[in-house]
Amino acid sequence: MTNTSFLTSYVNQFVETIKKAGIEDVVLCPGSRSTPLAYGFAKTKGFNFYRQIDERSAGYFALGIAKAKKNPVVLLCTSGTAAANFFPAIVEAYYARIPLLVITADRPHELREVGAPQAIDQIHMYGKHVKWSVDFPLPEAREESLAFVERHIHRAVSSSKAAPMGPVHINVPFREPLLLEMDKPSTTTQMHLADLGKLGPSEEFLKWYTHLISNTEKGLIIVGDSLATTDGFWEFAKTIQWPVLADPLSNLRSNVPADCMHLCVDQYDAILKSEIFKEVAVPEVVIRFGAQPVSKPLVKFLEAHQPETFIAVDESPLFRDSIHIVTHHIQVDASSLWMSIEEKQPSEYLKHWSKANDIATAHIKSYISEELDEGALAGILFESLSENTDLVASSSMPIRDVDTFFNKTSKDIQVYANRGTNGIDGVVSTALGIQAATKRPGFLLIGDLAFLHDINGLVVTRFNETDLTIVIMNNDGGGIFSYLPQSTETNYFEHLFGTPTGLEFSAIATMYDAQYDVVHTKEDFQTVLSKNKTKNIRIIEVRTDRKINTETHRKLWAAITEELDATWNA
Amino acid sequence: MTNTSFLTSYVNQFVETIKKAGIEDVVLCPGSRSTPLAYGFAKTKGFNFYRQIDERSAGYFALGIAKAKKNPVVLLCTSGTAAANFFPAIVEAYYARIPLLVITADRPHELREVGAPQAIDQIHMYGKHVKWSVDFPLPEAREESLAFVERHIHRAVSSSKAAPMGPVHINVPFREPLLLEMDKPSTTTQMHLADLGKLGPSEEFLKWYTHLISNTEKGLIIVGDSLATTDGFWEFAKTIQWPVLADPLSNLRSNVPADCMHLCVDQYDAILKSEIFKEVAVPEVVIRFGAQPVSKPLVKFLEAHQPETFIAVDESPLFRDSIHIVTHHIQVDASSLWMSIEEKQPSEYLKHWSKANDIATAHIKSYISEELDEGALAGILFESLSENTDLVASSSMPIRDVDTFFNKTSKDIQVYANRGTNGIDGVVSTALGIQAATKRPGFLLIGDLAFLHDINGLVVTRFNETDLTIVIMNNDGGGIFSYLPQSTETNYFEHLFGTPTGLEFSAIATMYDAQYDVVHTKEDFQTVLSKNKTKNIRIIEVRTDRKINTETHRKLWAAITEELDATWNA
Repeated sequence: MTNTSFLTSYVNQFVETIKKAGIEDVVLCPGSRSTPLAYGFAKTKGFNFYRQIDERSAGYFALGIAKAKKNPVVLLCTSGTAAANFFPAIVEAYYARIPLLVITADRPHELREVGAPQAIDQIHMYGKHVKWSVDFPLPEAREESLAFVERHIHRAVSSSKAAPMGPVHINVPFREPLLLEMDKPSTTTQMHLADLGKLGPSEEFLKWYTHLISNTEKGLIIVGDSLATTDGFWEFAKTIQWPVLADPLSNLRSNVPADCMHLCVDQYDAILKSEIFKEVAVPEVVIRFGAQPVSKPLVKFLEAHQPETFIAVDESPLFRDSIHIVTHHIQVDASSLWMSIEEKQPSEYLKHWSKANDIATAHIKSYISEELDEGALAGILFESLSENTDLVASSSMPIRDVDTFFNKTSKDIQVYANRGTNGIDGVVSTALGIQAATKRPGFLLIGDLAFLHDINGLVVTRFNETDLTIVIMNNDGGGIFSYLPQSTETNYFEHLFGTPTGLEFSAIATMYDAQYDVVHTKEDFQTVLSKNKTKNIRIIEVRTDRKINTETHRKLWAAITEELDATWNA
Repeated sequence: MTNTSFLTSYVNQFVETIKKAGIEDVVLCPGSRSTPLAYGFAKTKGFNFYRQIDERSAGYFALGIAKAKKNPVVLLCTSGTAAANFFPAIVEAYYARIPLLVITADRPHELREVGAPQAIDQIHMYGKHVKWSVDFPLPEAREESLAFVERHIHRAVSSSKAAPMGPVHINVPFREPLLLEMDKPSTTTQMHLADLGKLGPSEEFLKWYTHLISNTEKGLIIVGDSLATTDGFWEFAKTIQWPVLADPLSNLRSNVPADCMHLCVDQYDAILKSEIFKEVAVPEVVIRFGAQPVSKPLVKFLEAHQPETFIAVDESPLFRDSIHIVTHHIQVDASSLWMSIEEKQPSEYLKHWSKANDIATAHIKSYISEELDEGALAGILFESLSENTDLVASSSMPIRDVDTFFNKTSKDIQVYANRGTNGIDGVVSTALGIQAATKRPGFLLIGDLAFLHDINGLVVTRFNETDLTIVIMNNDGGGIFSYLPQSTETNYFEHLFGTPTGLEFSAIATMYDAQYDVVHTKEDFQTVLSKNKTKNIRIIEVRTDRKINTETHRKLWAAITEELDATWNA
């Protein structure tokens, strides 16, 4: 058997096993050492195949697909710093619990650590930020190798998909020649992917849990980012009639059933700035599903008024609790706790929350129609979204604007953000990846620095059809810093944090042949939003002012607080 | 003592120690958690202070400065994926032996691994790709902390500068509030930076070495990338009269003394394609200083005709030898072996090399004036460079074109490339960093994919004056792959390797307010090169054709080989 022949068998086994394991998407970064796998995936039918030249963007693009599909995506590159460029997306995937199958081609052992080109130490190179990492053997003429490939790819995919999901890393060395016998028939693999179990609650806990819910007057549900599913949630919430504080990334603000609309609290971020309302709102019991919410006022409220019982339902033993408030960590699949419990009547406690939410909503709605800052503009965008669209928000200001201005709705609008580590990197790519996965019209709300950071994300629009509209809030610099104490150091602030680049993005639109509009007023924005998307990628640049934003946002909070204070003081 | 007061003392100690350790340059990426250090560096006089929004580009920018200065540069960012974006530049710095002081701000211990925002596991996060990594204590009100800061910064800087140089990592957690007392006077530190020793040869080795040189007729010197200094090299070479195969990155092709010009062989890449000349050229002894050379024909020649004695002079015990040819690894400072040895007369062996070099040079020169491919255009660029300029070449094709078309000269032109891992990432930033360090006019030769990869490198031109001319060889895709065996798989090649994006870069020039020209002919290129630089950054886009390149290059090699064959066959 020639080298080429055995390399072909090895690669066929590799690719077929991945296909059989249910992986549908492959993101490839061109390079030489990865040639055998690139050809292997390219010649195998049934994969969605994407290319990206910038490996950092490729990582986030794959993450976007995996985020939307909740299924591992292959992310493939050559040896050397190409692999290091994947690191940011891998870190985000690890903390956001997104399944990725990262495959790095490597030089063979004799070319490692001897100064050979593009050879770095790739073994376990992502450290603790992958769930599992394995160094594959060199392709060789033995059956043990093929069995190894099959079994270890199964392990990798299973590990990536098992709760909590996350990235895994396969390092594969190849010797030259790197060419395959392209017509050699593929092998079929024998193994079936692991049937992954679900973590369920113990009898004892269930007894305690139902008793607790039955006997609690002031109970609160908080739902954060990234549940495996929301199916069955509202049936559960409806029976117990507790207020549900729905983080925008819980995707419980969309698709809200009519008979649960009163349970869904979407304005807690605004409401919980009123000290007087907070007294009314203190819960006895909190149950949190998913990640910690975005809202800082909510975090501060919980920190100041620690409920006696705080249950975090989290599939990971390393449960999320940055404010040290959790009293019970329940390591189960969230949906396993959404059972039918005795039907309860709406409590006074729920009515307080609903009333406050209505008051805040009225303010927010009139603010959207009257003001001209980023928040109001974001509100206009959200109101314009129709059924079956996806909204991606960048970290930093955009996700906070979503938190405030994205109102609960019966429409199906899925909201996404990279909140594993809250980076502003890779956001354009993430949005493009989500769009590639769902095929639904996508909208990305992003600041100018985050857009600039991932301009290279747009490269995929040269190779694939997309349906994404990017709305850039261009306030020329780091908007969020204006809200932090650092902004008081006026001597250094603009230099160190504002970092205005003076850049605008019409040129990028030209370069990528994008549909482009720049708008300065709300009316213009509305007009532009109502126009059809006519090109492969669409950019709307909205010019805003960092200073005005801070002021108008603060005015809004003050007005809401004032009315809440007056209402509950009466 | 308040927290703010103690934080200020801690930060002052931190910054002053770094200053006292002789570090001059700080590259900052804006973020919140790094606020204390950002303010600390900003308020301290005596640093060159640079900002970059994209941390990946920032890493390579710092690497560029450090490459030119051979002195550590501070690279500072906030917590989270910001730090992960530094990874590619750190990996390159590790293998290219460039000193960097990477400082990542971190969340305090109570916010680690609990789902807090922008908190990742930063301890040892760069794995084996830094020389040393340390996690600092939280600022606290104890003298031990200040002593720790002073001593561990000394350790970090010393470790970074000790041969072989490289990146080190300091992780520093901070608790809120993050503000300093800006007027608090700085502390002075007591310690002096380590006086780093130099590795010198043993008596026994020296005796053997001088005897070997005296008694060798066919001796060859090869000099690669990144010697700490070249001072004294030519005096040494002159006494022994061995041919010197000077890799462009050895910087021995520039500043060549008139009486050593005949020793300097710069066309070995072309020469060593002739099988007949190779027989003549086989050396008995090779001494290599610095990294392995770029040239593949040279590598193949050495592999096929293994010299009996191959000495690699390398400061690292992990000496570089990817073809397993080294017989003696001498771990010393290169210049310690450049002593006066008995004056030898030019040998027949040297004359063969000189003659072949002259033949190849004549071909190369007429090629530059007659052809219109990337090589000829690159040659035009190199011939246009004046005294006291820097030339940076991207990996992949440009460095190979430098190898072929950059002829030896008495002018002072320093040549740089990222050859630690040969990535095409971060090249624009590296060039801008080198220019920031040397203040000399800089020229960057780069392909379209590499330019695209690091477009964000240009962000620093918004904040700093620069004197860089970027020459983009735009052949719309991955040019180097056309030279590889993969190109025979015509069904998949363009899709997987060529990856034409169809992008051109005039829009980028508009966005960054760059002086911009696009040229299609050699005459245009010459005219444009003769124009003055009038803006902060200059881009010349040269449209070329991947297919023509491969063909004309191959024709050139054939013509040279033919004449060499004929000459030595006679």
